[in-house]
Amino acid sequence: VRPATIADIDTPAVLIDLDRVEANLTRAQTYADAHGLKLRPHIKTHKLPLFAHRQIALGAVGITCQKIGEAEVMAQAGIGDILIPYNIIGRDKLTRLRSLHERITLAASADSAFVAAGLSEAFSGMQSPLTVLVECDTGMGRCGVTTPEATVALATGIARSPGLRFGGLMTYPAAGNPARTEAWLSEAVAALRQAGLDVPVVSSGGTPDLWRAHEVETATEHRPGTYIYLDRKHVETGMCGIEDCALTVLATVVSHPDADRAVIDAGSKTLSSDTLGLTGFGMLVDHPEVVIKGLSEEHGHLTNAGALNIGERVRVLPNHACVVSNLFDVVHLVSGDEVLDIIPVAARGRVG
Amino acid sequence: VRPATIADIDTPAVLIDLDRVEANLTRAQTYADAHGLKLRPHIKTHKLPLFAHRQIALGAVGITCQKIGEAEVMAQAGIGDILIPYNIIGRDKLTRLRSLHERITLAASADSAFVAAGLSEAFSGMQSPLTVLVECDTGMGRCGVTTPEATVALATGIARSPGLRFGGLMTYPAAGNPARTEAWLSEAVAALRQAGLDVPVVSSGGTPDLWRAHEVETATEHRPGTYIYLDRKHVETGMCGIEDCALTVLATVVSHPDADRAVIDAGSKTLSSDTLGLTGFGMLVDHPEVVIKGLSEEHGHLTNAGALNIGERVRVLPNHACVVSNLFDVVHLVSGDEVLDIIPVAARGRVG
Repeated sequence: VRPATIADIDTPAVLIDLDRVEANLTRAQTYADAHGLKLRPHIKTHKLPLFAHRQIALGAVGITCQKIGEAEVMAQAGIGDILIPYNIIGRDKLTRLRSLHERITLAASADSAFVAAGLSEAFSGMQSPLTVLVECDTGMGRCGVTTPEATVALATGIARSPGLRFGGLMTYPAAGNPARTEAWLSEAVAALRQAGLDVPVVSSGGTPDLWRAHEVETATEHRPGTYIYLDRKHVETGMCGIEDCALTVLATVVSHPDADRAVIDAGSKTLSSDTLGLTGFGMLVDHPEVVIKGLSEEHGHLTNAGALNIGERVRVLPNHACVVSNLFDVVHLVSGDEVLDIIPVAARGRVG
Repeated sequence: VRPATIADIDTPAVLIDLDRVEANLTRAQTYADAHGLKLRPHIKTHKLPLFAHRQIALGAVGITCQKIGEAEVMAQAGIGDILIPYNIIGRDKLTRLRSLHERITLAASADSAFVAAGLSEAFSGMQSPLTVLVECDTGMGRCGVTTPEATVALATGIARSPGLRFGGLMTYPAAGNPARTEAWLSEAVAALRQAGLDVPVVSSGGTPDLWRAHEVETATEHRPGTYIYLDRKHVETGMCGIEDCALTVLATVVSHPDADRAVIDAGSKTLSSDTLGLTGFGMLVDHPEVVIKGLSEEHGHLTNAGALNIGERVRVLPNHACVVSNLFDVVHLVSGDEVLDIIPVAARGRVG
């Protein structure tokens, strides 16, 4: 029997507030439209075909998936334009990538000649080339070529590789410094044009600086992920308010060993151990004074919890929404207190 | 096509070395038998009916599951004796617990009168009572009654409750101090006997002090979980060697942005963000000099990684094995380099 209201849902459970989802998606698309920026949402946050379709209906040019397995789920669900901004290596993955390429508009990325060579070998026999973006490290210190010179060298190699088409640049920028991202990208684009290469797409991403995405003037598209749900991290940085956050974890107080401490049935298996630099592992929406001091796998250990009672149900705003989606097989779609549906997280657990 | 050898497995993937599993299970059962201690392994680490059956075949008296959903999977697979050492609250869970009780030998726990009252109400109409252990906080500072007096009060209440049978005590002890655990439990047992209560079971747990479990002389059974796979945490504390660890994550180097840094395709979605107090997020078995300095969801960020090459495959020993089992839909069973089987992690993701 499907629960009619939130009070009927067994815990722990993920609640997705559909009204907030709609507001968050609309706000971002309106912003992007106002600035002539294309939106290519990253579905890693929700992993749901339902919301991918909604993002496209609102105006997104396509979606972003981090893994081939996620892209396969989304293509199966009818999404026709997917970027996989990941270095794809190995026979099995390349075979799957070819199969996807036959069905949808697909692009991938590379940050080394090794990756580009593998893609070229896999796609050289195909009718249409695979679009490949060069991943640029514009300051984050993760993947990506680290200089405009290396960008030109790799882009030139891709442009000359059988089976590949150089599609432009991709970066995941460090937060808080759009000017630096812009300087990096504009210098690289100038160098590429000087080398005779067309740069049709410059793709940046991230929710932390979503409202400043237009400051990266060279970017043609933006790939926000977390913006659909938002989370405690983005509340703490001031990017949004608690009232914008669409994903919460419903939990029950299962123990209250002393006056100060309480324990809920949401631990690292439901909230993840991600702190993202914050103190504590989430916040109780209706009890902001409570500290989620530690997590074991099935328990959240609270302090300053004198106001809570055993058996009471609480809503936890997690530090990091994306990882919570990956931990649950299903999510509950709600509007106010009403439960509208329970749907499988179709693209969760797709590690490859 | 099932991969024949580890070289054929796409990454990231969980590898379970069956020879090491067998050695770890046998070593613990031999130890327990030598000390007249019953073993009731916690299946949260492997979440696999295959290994639960093996643990029982080797001599375990039953298994431990942390959630009803895990117990349901194991009961369905034919496991007939399960302890759920968790405060079970709420109509839905109590209904499921009753259903389990009709099929298998079941015990639960409680650390408050609130939880005991809920269990009593649910089981008072049943033919046979539910066995309930009192959870004791012997020093860990998580769930559990915190004094022998509170133990007696709760046990007396359970013994008098319709539908319930007081089954004894349960604790998850703090590591490194079996003497303190023993002092706490023996005082509580003495107080219970003085109050006229029989204490058939005293259940302790944990892998960190597994080889010292016999020092808790009052305990009648022990619930180790991680001992089946072991992990970097237990290597670092000296509880085991790297050569005992049965679970590794196979990963591929996907980027090498500069001479020192490399990136693998195993991030927090495959290793979890658990540090367990260690520096770094795991270790590369064949490259102990490499530091897994940070994780994003789909990437592990390595430093001191000069010896690695893009496309190279590595085996990562995670900090915490249990949480990795929960993140993968399937695991690969291997012996040496040979892949014997790929099996679903049947009890993963059972949050309720």
